[in-house]
Amino acid sequence: MNIKSILNILGNLLLILAISMLLPIIVGIYFREEDAFVFIISMGITYISGYLLKSFKYNKNGLQYKDGFVVVTLGWLLVSIYGAFPFLLAGVFTNPIDAFFESVSGFTTTGATVIMSLESLSHTILFWRSLTHWLGGMGIIVMTIAILPQLAGNMNLFIAEVSGPLHNRIKPRIQETAKTLWIIYIFLTFIQVILLYGNGLPLFEAVIHSFGTISSGGFSSRVLSVKAYNSIIIEVIMILFMFIAGTNFNLIYSFFRLRIRDVFYDEELRLYIILLGTAILMISLNLYFNVYHDLALAIRYACFQVVSITSTTGFATVDYNTWPPFSRWILLLLMFIGGSAGSTAGGIKVVRVQVLFKKGFQELYHLLHPRAIKKIKVNKVVVSERVSTSILGFFFLYIIVFVVATVTLSYFGVDIISSISAVASTLGNIGPGLQLVGPLKTYLSLPDLAKLLLSICMMMGRLEIYTILVFIFMDWE
Amino acid sequence: MNIKSILNILGNLLLILAISMLLPIIVGIYFREEDAFVFIISMGITYISGYLLKSFKYNKNGLQYKDGFVVVTLGWLLVSIYGAFPFLLAGVFTNPIDAFFESVSGFTTTGATVIMSLESLSHTILFWRSLTHWLGGMGIIVMTIAILPQLAGNMNLFIAEVSGPLHNRIKPRIQETAKTLWIIYIFLTFIQVILLYGNGLPLFEAVIHSFGTISSGGFSSRVLSVKAYNSIIIEVIMILFMFIAGTNFNLIYSFFRLRIRDVFYDEELRLYIILLGTAILMISLNLYFNVYHDLALAIRYACFQVVSITSTTGFATVDYNTWPPFSRWILLLLMFIGGSAGSTAGGIKVVRVQVLFKKGFQELYHLLHPRAIKKIKVNKVVVSERVSTSILGFFFLYIIVFVVATVTLSYFGVDIISSISAVASTLGNIGPGLQLVGPLKTYLSLPDLAKLLLSICMMMGRLEIYTILVFIFMDWE
Repeated sequence: MNIKSILNILGNLLLILAISMLLPIIVGIYFREEDAFVFIISMGITYISGYLLKSFKYNKNGLQYKDGFVVVTLGWLLVSIYGAFPFLLAGVFTNPIDAFFESVSGFTTTGATVIMSLESLSHTILFWRSLTHWLGGMGIIVMTIAILPQLAGNMNLFIAEVSGPLHNRIKPRIQETAKTLWIIYIFLTFIQVILLYGNGLPLFEAVIHSFGTISSGGFSSRVLSVKAYNSIIIEVIMILFMFIAGTNFNLIYSFFRLRIRDVFYDEELRLYIILLGTAILMISLNLYFNVYHDLALAIRYACFQVVSITSTTGFATVDYNTWPPFSRWILLLLMFIGGSAGSTAGGIKVVRVQVLFKKGFQELYHLLHPRAIKKIKVNKVVVSERVSTSILGFFFLYIIVFVVATVTLSYFGVDIISSISAVASTLGNIGPGLQLVGPLKTYLSLPDLAKLLLSICMMMGRLEIYTILVFIFMDWE
Repeated sequence: MNIKSILNILGNLLLILAISMLLPIIVGIYFREEDAFVFIISMGITYISGYLLKSFKYNKNGLQYKDGFVVVTLGWLLVSIYGAFPFLLAGVFTNPIDAFFESVSGFTTTGATVIMSLESLSHTILFWRSLTHWLGGMGIIVMTIAILPQLAGNMNLFIAEVSGPLHNRIKPRIQETAKTLWIIYIFLTFIQVILLYGNGLPLFEAVIHSFGTISSGGFSSRVLSVKAYNSIIIEVIMILFMFIAGTNFNLIYSFFRLRIRDVFYDEELRLYIILLGTAILMISLNLYFNVYHDLALAIRYACFQVVSITSTTGFATVDYNTWPPFSRWILLLLMFIGGSAGSTAGGIKVVRVQVLFKKGFQELYHLLHPRAIKKIKVNKVVVSERVSTSILGFFFLYIIVFVVATVTLSYFGVDIISSISAVASTLGNIGPGLQLVGPLKTYLSLPDLAKLLLSICMMMGRLEIYTILVFIFMDWE
């Protein structure tokens, strides 16, 4: 283990975080809010910590293979801790665990909140809260890779933060890829802000909701979330960008380069669309016959909620807690599936689910034809046994983490549905769950240990489990 | 496909079923009950059907590889249908779906019931109901293999019915193995009857509960199940035999042959014991602190319920529906795990869970040491990649069947916890679930389609999913 190099990178990470705090300071000055000072102090603390860590020299051997897991896990932990300071200093929370929870929820783009009265917060704090989404969405480590010359070629770090089992780079060089991803991300955010602003949202709220959408985060500036606006056009824009946030960014890049064929022939995108369509159809009908008796309204609610949950964003336009069991069950399942690999969405990811089903059929085929060999293909490319088995293993570990966390949560006396949905929602980086943690509720009422547990779930979900499990079970030398 | 051979074997199967109906006739005559006539008629119908089917000649080519899946699936379906006739003829049910549900639940050793007032049934019917457990427990197809000379060496049929991923035969010949398994089974039943009878149960009830225990079925002659006796010694006997029913019968054979070393070094048995111990400990403490405040009582209830659920029997001494979420969650998990491979228990099976965890760690190890090779071993024998991947696939398919069935059930308006537990309980062949289908309730209130769906779950669980899935997705020629 190359401790000095690790500390050096972690220092650089904190420096980037410190610089990002300039943005809320500008917002605070613009709105003439006291909380600007909070960020000046936080920035100072973060900058000094980063500077001290950076003074460890980046070794000429660089990062070894194992060090990647350490950098990513500790990096996310540090960023979440330092990101929590402003909440504490501004007096939003008195309990440091609440501040940490909100910060982790932000950076992991979960969007689960422990704040009851959002409308009483300053613009500065609301902005920071949503900025954590935006920074975490594309990945603060991907940003570090894009910036630091010494990390050129470090595929290992890149893999740990960018989701999905198969990693196609957009550009031959990893650093170029990281930069391109960030440019697309900034561009999409910009377009959404303009669209929301042009359709009646105040600029500040347009920015907040764009940060929350494109990162698939889900923090809103309103307690009622997007329900507060009750505007179809706003909902349509949100649905479109939530959909995009759940799409592989490689495809978005192909789209911008007018390689439309590549986009429409992509199996994962097709399955993602079929999945959304089927879920919307089933929930719409279920709601129409059992709740609203107004087809247009049922479709409107179903569209927004299905895309919001599947893209793992977590905005709400309705209290789906009151929906019939069938609709709630489907939403719960969508929490597990999540969006596409290589997107900002969480969950198991559509392409993994696709490979899992193909693998399942392969097993059945193998039973019928013991001597025949049937290969699994995605987009006409063979998926190796190694990769498909590893995806099966991922599925198993995902379920195990889910089960262990749910049992622990129920130990604190949380009822079964609340604990199932709270864990599914945090592990899949969605945000709201059902019952106690429904869309109009917060996670505030849970005990501190439960909040810490769910914070770990959020990080595990964001880093796709393996990184943190390897970190935990590593043979430290 | 060798249709004539298939029909011939199915005919033989029905003949065996018809002969087994002699037993309730004897019981009916002994108790001088009218229902004896019901079984004379049922036996006649079954015998004639069997005789007609048997008239198709068993081909000299015998059964082909694929035919095994057809024989086993159709065999279980036929036996369940013919086994339902007596319930209908005796007027226990007016709805044929209820009769079918009760019959499937019996043969698959699930023990989920749709009968509200057990105490009003005749001895003859109660006996038949429990006999279906006993016949299904060791496997009516295993019995057919033991009896029919033409099936000598048909490993394929044997594998489909005897549970578990690894098939060690006790004897070199498959037919000898089948016979030995049945002898052990009969012997254990006999011992339990004597013990229960010797400790105060009426002989009839001793037989009923022994049938329900050793088959890991769970049908009782009392609405209150084993709670009705409120006797510690009876509970201890039941716990012991439920434990044995969840143990690999190969180990029981080794035990009788005094190969004690083989038994105590068996990894699955050890894990099974550790699992039971841990669950009992956690539930006892949870109950002690939150419900009963009497440690002895908490341990007593926890022991019985944990062993009953894990061995997938499903007897109850308490309404665990009222327990805190943590205890109920653990029971729900145990429903998924189930007993040992090669036992009469259902569920995923302990050895599969063991391999899954080893495989999970192997994946993590592989991430840390990409070039190293780490093999998975069970009882010091290497588990091939083929087998371990197939177990991962089994896990995935088990979860998918669970999810599809639960969503469908919730479509009928069943609440989330009831549908989760009903499917987990039928798929794992336990019997009772939680809420609506709790231990003091029945499945009667569910709609007919839900009952049919759960009947399929019971068969899928009993035949370990693959057989029926292959049957469904077979390329029929």
